[in-house]
Amino acid sequence: MSPSESAALRLYEKHEAALREARRACLERSYFTLFPETPDRHRGGAAAAEAGAAAFRAQLGRSFDLDQPGTLGRLAGEVSPYTQSALGIDYPRADPDALFAAARAAMGPWAAASPHARLGVCMEIVDRLYEGVFETAQAVMHTAGQSGPMSYAGSGTNALDRGVEALAYASAAMADVPSEALWERRFGSATIRLRKRYRLVPRGVAVCFACATFPTWNAYPAMLASLATGNAVLVKPHPSAILPMALAVRTCRRVLLDAGFSPDLVTLCLDSAEDPIGKRLVKHPQTAIVDFTGSARFGAWVEAHAHPALCYSETSGVNTVVVESVEALEPVLKSLATTMSLFSAQMCTSPQNVYVPRDGIRCGERRIGADEFGAALAAAIGAIAGDPRRAAPIMAAIQSPGTPVLIDEIAAAGAKRGRVLQASAPYAHPEFPQARTRTPLLLAVEAGARDLYGEERFGPIGFVISTADRDAALAEATADARAGGGITAFVYSTDPAYVERAEAAYSIAGAQLTCNLTGAMPLNFAAAYSDYHVTGMNPAGNATLTDLAFVASRFRITQSRAPVV
Amino acid sequence: MSPSESAALRLYEKHEAALREARRACLERSYFTLFPETPDRHRGGAAAAEAGAAAFRAQLGRSFDLDQPGTLGRLAGEVSPYTQSALGIDYPRADPDALFAAARAAMGPWAAASPHARLGVCMEIVDRLYEGVFETAQAVMHTAGQSGPMSYAGSGTNALDRGVEALAYASAAMADVPSEALWERRFGSATIRLRKRYRLVPRGVAVCFACATFPTWNAYPAMLASLATGNAVLVKPHPSAILPMALAVRTCRRVLLDAGFSPDLVTLCLDSAEDPIGKRLVKHPQTAIVDFTGSARFGAWVEAHAHPALCYSETSGVNTVVVESVEALEPVLKSLATTMSLFSAQMCTSPQNVYVPRDGIRCGERRIGADEFGAALAAAIGAIAGDPRRAAPIMAAIQSPGTPVLIDEIAAAGAKRGRVLQASAPYAHPEFPQARTRTPLLLAVEAGARDLYGEERFGPIGFVISTADRDAALAEATADARAGGGITAFVYSTDPAYVERAEAAYSIAGAQLTCNLTGAMPLNFAAAYSDYHVTGMNPAGNATLTDLAFVASRFRITQSRAPVV
Repeated sequence: MSPSESAALRLYEKHEAALREARRACLERSYFTLFPETPDRHRGGAAAAEAGAAAFRAQLGRSFDLDQPGTLGRLAGEVSPYTQSALGIDYPRADPDALFAAARAAMGPWAAASPHARLGVCMEIVDRLYEGVFETAQAVMHTAGQSGPMSYAGSGTNALDRGVEALAYASAAMADVPSEALWERRFGSATIRLRKRYRLVPRGVAVCFACATFPTWNAYPAMLASLATGNAVLVKPHPSAILPMALAVRTCRRVLLDAGFSPDLVTLCLDSAEDPIGKRLVKHPQTAIVDFTGSARFGAWVEAHAHPALCYSETSGVNTVVVESVEALEPVLKSLATTMSLFSAQMCTSPQNVYVPRDGIRCGERRIGADEFGAALAAAIGAIAGDPRRAAPIMAAIQSPGTPVLIDEIAAAGAKRGRVLQASAPYAHPEFPQARTRTPLLLAVEAGARDLYGEERFGPIGFVISTADRDAALAEATADARAGGGITAFVYSTDPAYVERAEAAYSIAGAQLTCNLTGAMPLNFAAAYSDYHVTGMNPAGNATLTDLAFVASRFRITQSRAPVV
Repeated sequence: MSPSESAALRLYEKHEAALREARRACLERSYFTLFPETPDRHRGGAAAAEAGAAAFRAQLGRSFDLDQPGTLGRLAGEVSPYTQSALGIDYPRADPDALFAAARAAMGPWAAASPHARLGVCMEIVDRLYEGVFETAQAVMHTAGQSGPMSYAGSGTNALDRGVEALAYASAAMADVPSEALWERRFGSATIRLRKRYRLVPRGVAVCFACATFPTWNAYPAMLASLATGNAVLVKPHPSAILPMALAVRTCRRVLLDAGFSPDLVTLCLDSAEDPIGKRLVKHPQTAIVDFTGSARFGAWVEAHAHPALCYSETSGVNTVVVESVEALEPVLKSLATTMSLFSAQMCTSPQNVYVPRDGIRCGERRIGADEFGAALAAAIGAIAGDPRRAAPIMAAIQSPGTPVLIDEIAAAGAKRGRVLQASAPYAHPEFPQARTRTPLLLAVEAGARDLYGEERFGPIGFVISTADRDAALAEATADARAGGGITAFVYSTDPAYVERAEAAYSIAGAQLTCNLTGAMPLNFAAAYSDYHVTGMNPAGNATLTDLAFVASRFRITQSRAPVV
């Protein structure tokens, strides 16, 4: 046994119980986490939090230390949405061909390692990422614009749990193939006895595209699923959110090196908005797997052109809400207003379109008209928007300078086609006076104005859509989710038959449904090990976090058989 | 519970133990079968054999009874390779759009049925196909040209076992998703409790292309995997081998109808060589899955153009043999000669290229030169070819009139570039004097004549390829398998280190290796539940019979969650 195999197997022993628990959770889909979701319960205590923040501050204005092959020069360009000033960090800009060559050269011993060995190293990567989660949270906050708590929980612990979830599935898929078998059969009067050996063979080099607003959440599972099954990974961050992925790549490289494998199994491949290399990476002859998170437009191109590489994608979300009847309006408004404001709706799960029957929502004995509902929802959003101390932890900052422009365009178009229920404006962030902020725009339109609401309008842009009646509300909402690509969907109805029809209709539309939820949980919260994220049935993406299909094709099986002597 | 669900669940109970045993066999990869492989052990006894033969005879010259939608006219054209006369059977030629529409209309209750219900119906289909296996065997014999025993075992029982194997994987993949879960977590001071329900949703309509020479072997697993996961299936047979698939479609339709589901979940979609519809089916907007078995050329087109449909393919086999050293030459020659003659090498697993070091094969104390080996292999083939009573059950008949033409072309080209070791000629089939037969052509060429041997030469065409030395033999063979698409590979060596290198090299090339096998088992025999067929790592195809990847993407998962009240 090679030293790297032994070292990696020790890591597997260290993490085996956690991985087994994760697999059990995936099968039961009950609550599970490996990581407390609040910073105060981090195993490193307050010191870890301060060290992470200090490491981030020390990085600002300096070169990022990443010793990888093929460096052609340096590249920078990130701007904090909170300060609107440059982070001043420069990174190695690599020659993609050199990264592919280095990845291929590194793959032999990694592919030859046992599944347990690879899983051990991958779990150790997760563990080390958790150790550095405070620095990652700062990095996400100052590139994506998330709030501090979301950066920590959503982009930190929850993203790590989704990574472990992917490892649990990879473990199960690999364990489905035995390493050897004894096979015996009679042919005529003779008995043939064969010993058969089976090998798991990785596909090759995976390219993982990370997005600008929630980079780690999709990238961790993709990177870990590819790595665990023996592949190498080139990580291609969005040019405006490099640091979170650079930290992840550096951690992967260190853990791989410590375990005796080549660090070149994971490298960082950068480009700029001016000179994008995404298409070149997708069509590179060495690309075997593409994991893509990003825009619907480029995502559709990637899906259509990835062949012969495998493609796993998550793109946009036209997420819909149907309000048919409620026990009480207030809690529904509060949940909707909060979730539509959360991270300024820059999540692929943020609700955008709220469908309301024109003749009103039944609420106990009375009916709430569509206009009245729209005004009340606007007021609930306004109550958050109007109080910067409430707004800041919920709305956080706007990642892209293009988003305020889009908001104003849609506001102008919406004013012509319908009514502005709630205007969008910057709010004054209490801690970061220079922050790029925008409160949500809420428009009232009639069903049919699909040129406005039929696609994802990325950012804090919402629509209250009046439909002929409750049946039309459900029909329009599910049709729009199916056509535009819905990831999440929400229904409020006190009528069990209506809820049942909604479940059936959204199941066909391929959007994951949440019914009658109010209270402390953000409506769009997706729980690792429990909620399947993206169905693959509509344009919102073709892959699910996490099911067997997400991992089972990332490796292949070869065999050798010989007579038993 | 609907009557169809109850009926189907009773079928599941009937077959549950068999399915569980099959799943266990897949995990252990040990010997398993649900069906005795010789006709005399069929549960129906001699009466079943006679009834099957009688049913086939009665079908000749008559319309095939298949009551399915969208019939535009009738279509015929099959010719028996054994009699070279038309079967005279005509089939409904359907409007593909009508079949897709009928399939979509049929899918609702099938998709809504439980996985157990669908598995029960699918196992019953297998059972009924086994009941009719004698008729199917006759159909395969008189369309593909297989021998009687191969038609029964290879295209009958073994193909059914591969179908059950696919069902065992589909069962495991579906069982990985629970139908519901209770999830509970604290958010701040509140506890959120959600009941989550998960549904398995089929992709849609699958199109299954069956090939001319071994139609059932790939089609059964594909059809059953798609059906079990809730999809509908359009079966598109090769125009020269319709009857085996028409029988399968009719059986599927009857079992579905008996269980209370729409028979339109499985339909037959025919075309002719003059007016092919393959591309139209692949690009049909309703096509969600394509299973393709057929030529490398069209297969490559299908793989590249199937998107957005999933594609599972098996195309050609450039199957290689390396002879480095042997204990005794005779048993090796016998196995190679028999396997290269088996069904006139019209199997995707038939060996084609035999690589021999120019300085000879070590055999005990002496070396056998490449020329001597070539002559001996030709003599071993000649011994079979020269005795029609031996030749007939091994070589059987030639499926396509194009194959003798190809043999003669390659013989002419080979005579210029190398030497004809064994000429190909018709042999007189003892039972069918009109049979289209050809004994194997064996050519001696130097390594490098890849224009001759670098692609699959479908039919009884073999090459003995002289290479510089034993290392070159392995390097050339594995490179050709990788580039041309090897499914199987064979190595003879008494040097364990050489065998180990061969295992590693073929694992990279993506061909399944058999080492030092001699004796009663055909070298290319692929055992259901044990041998993984096709790796997906070279141009021979992208899918494996059977692994989790073959089934896990055929369905999707949707969910609905709501607070527990």
